[in-house]
Amino acid sequence: MTVTQPPLLPLAISLGDPAGIGPELIAAAWDQREAEGLPPFFAVGNRDLIEAAARSRGLAIPVVAIAAPDEAAAVFPHALPVLDVGTCAYTPGLPDDAGAALALRALEVATSLVKQGAAAALVTGPIAKSRLARIGFNQPGQTEFVAEACGITPENAVMMLAGPHLRVVPITVHVALRDVPFLLSAELIRSRSAIAASALTRDFGVAHPRLAVAALNPHAGEDGRMGTEDRDVIVPAVAALQAAGIDARGPLPADTMFHAEARATYDAAICMYHDQALIPIKVLDFDEGVNVTLGLPIIRTSPDHGTAFAIAGTGTARSGATIAAIRMAGECAARRAAAG
Amino acid sequence: MTVTQPPLLPLAISLGDPAGIGPELIAAAWDQREAEGLPPFFAVGNRDLIEAAARSRGLAIPVVAIAAPDEAAAVFPHALPVLDVGTCAYTPGLPDDAGAALALRALEVATSLVKQGAAAALVTGPIAKSRLARIGFNQPGQTEFVAEACGITPENAVMMLAGPHLRVVPITVHVALRDVPFLLSAELIRSRSAIAASALTRDFGVAHPRLAVAALNPHAGEDGRMGTEDRDVIVPAVAALQAAGIDARGPLPADTMFHAEARATYDAAICMYHDQALIPIKVLDFDEGVNVTLGLPIIRTSPDHGTAFAIAGTGTARSGATIAAIRMAGECAARRAAAG
Repeated sequence: MTVTQPPLLPLAISLGDPAGIGPELIAAAWDQREAEGLPPFFAVGNRDLIEAAARSRGLAIPVVAIAAPDEAAAVFPHALPVLDVGTCAYTPGLPDDAGAALALRALEVATSLVKQGAAAALVTGPIAKSRLARIGFNQPGQTEFVAEACGITPENAVMMLAGPHLRVVPITVHVALRDVPFLLSAELIRSRSAIAASALTRDFGVAHPRLAVAALNPHAGEDGRMGTEDRDVIVPAVAALQAAGIDARGPLPADTMFHAEARATYDAAICMYHDQALIPIKVLDFDEGVNVTLGLPIIRTSPDHGTAFAIAGTGTARSGATIAAIRMAGECAARRAAAG
Repeated sequence: MTVTQPPLLPLAISLGDPAGIGPELIAAAWDQREAEGLPPFFAVGNRDLIEAAARSRGLAIPVVAIAAPDEAAAVFPHALPVLDVGTCAYTPGLPDDAGAALALRALEVATSLVKQGAAAALVTGPIAKSRLARIGFNQPGQTEFVAEACGITPENAVMMLAGPHLRVVPITVHVALRDVPFLLSAELIRSRSAIAASALTRDFGVAHPRLAVAALNPHAGEDGRMGTEDRDVIVPAVAALQAAGIDARGPLPADTMFHAEARATYDAAICMYHDQALIPIKVLDFDEGVNVTLGLPIIRTSPDHGTAFAIAGTGTARSGATIAAIRMAGECAARRAAAG
């Protein structure tokens, strides 16, 4: 499927924690919109705060408040459009409850606008989960929040990390390593891999996605001599995927999956746990990793980094991942729009 | 410590399985000795077989049988010296018991010569452990064999993988992932890290080695919320290393340890399990990884790849790791020689 036109609607970007690097990176992305060929977007948060964050980076860009998403397209070429959803002082590096409340409100409104069809895709800025939990946010993270808002169970919202060199899907994510072998099941691997395969076609234009499924154990367990999960859990999962017509291979020894020649043989690596997925993509695409949530009715991406409170307001945070998240959201939205 | 002179003695390279890529890569390394600036070495195996393996790669190099290691230095500039320790037909891709016996004999003799001081260092060619087990080899691998031959317990022989971009030390290696949390202890991490630090100074010329110790769990366990081992096992291990005057940091979230900026802050990464160590180094240094055994009275390196029976004799196996293993062994030997 060829991308022939930009999305008709702008993208919505939620602020992230106001004390983190999210606001300044929205400004930096807008500043680089032409050089990077970014699609139109608007921020959901607070105009004055984003302007202050821009100034902290030395960016004297125009920031304009809009009353509704349909004003964004006209503003975007000459100013960063911001939909105000609350107020909060700009205190980089000093998170507080008021900032967490604004971050949450921005996430809620941005998600809602995309669901309603008023924006083409959702890009979420980085939040501090522990901060949001203090003000009553009861989700493990933004992914689960967005999934629930879309009526999707967390099991069916699948995280993919994508960069210029690699796409990885961790089957388990934020759990202790010792729990991983017990959380894996052939059905979990099958269902998440199938969601990934569908999304690669629908949103990433990969007509026949090739999945490389990583082994859990060294050397793929050597037929049970170093762990039985590869033989007993992953082999059946791959067989089920193949039976469903999905081009899946594995379990493959994970250490030999991620050099350039190996990567050329697949479109996404299905990994069994957090570090198995995140180590290789952060080696390869540290500054440009995008977190994409697959399996949702809407498109949602996020830069693959945190709030980085320690460097907020210092002008050193790199904008590559935010730019990549915006670009990827725009490309996915254009594909869905082109497909009707 | 500056390396001011080449080692006085040649290196000994064991053949590896005759049906694998080991023999042809010894020939390829000799062929590239001048361009690569390799120190003098001799192969331990069979002259005719290595000559046949060289021919299979299109290498019409002179291969000369020597009767003792002290003949190698004079031969090396104009021919590849080989110490015959048995005979075996060259049947690439078709391993058999006769070949396994020759590989084992070559390993035994090469190890013995280095122990006796007749060769400066040991480089081992790739063997197939399951093949050697069939003829009575009762060690998990060559590392354990060499350690025992040197009177070192396996616990004190520490594997390090080293490439141009990264050095990694896996604390646990060939075990099921589910066993890793139970095999780790503060004392195991401390003792292996201390051996690594000593070897970095003695053999690699790093005066004050900086060790980055990886966490076991995602985000280093977030203070026990995602696994307790980081807090309860790794933190005390790092404290013990620091108390001993070793520059160790950790536990560090493993996914953010291996990009270029992070790598610049340490000399070796101490990893908790096989894939945590091998994924990043094989992303970065796939064709040039060297397996070094630390903590031995002798120097031992090995190319970090297997026998690759499937491509033996086809001329496609890459010689980079063998060349790197020879070069590293020579450099380590020169440092020990210079230190007296």
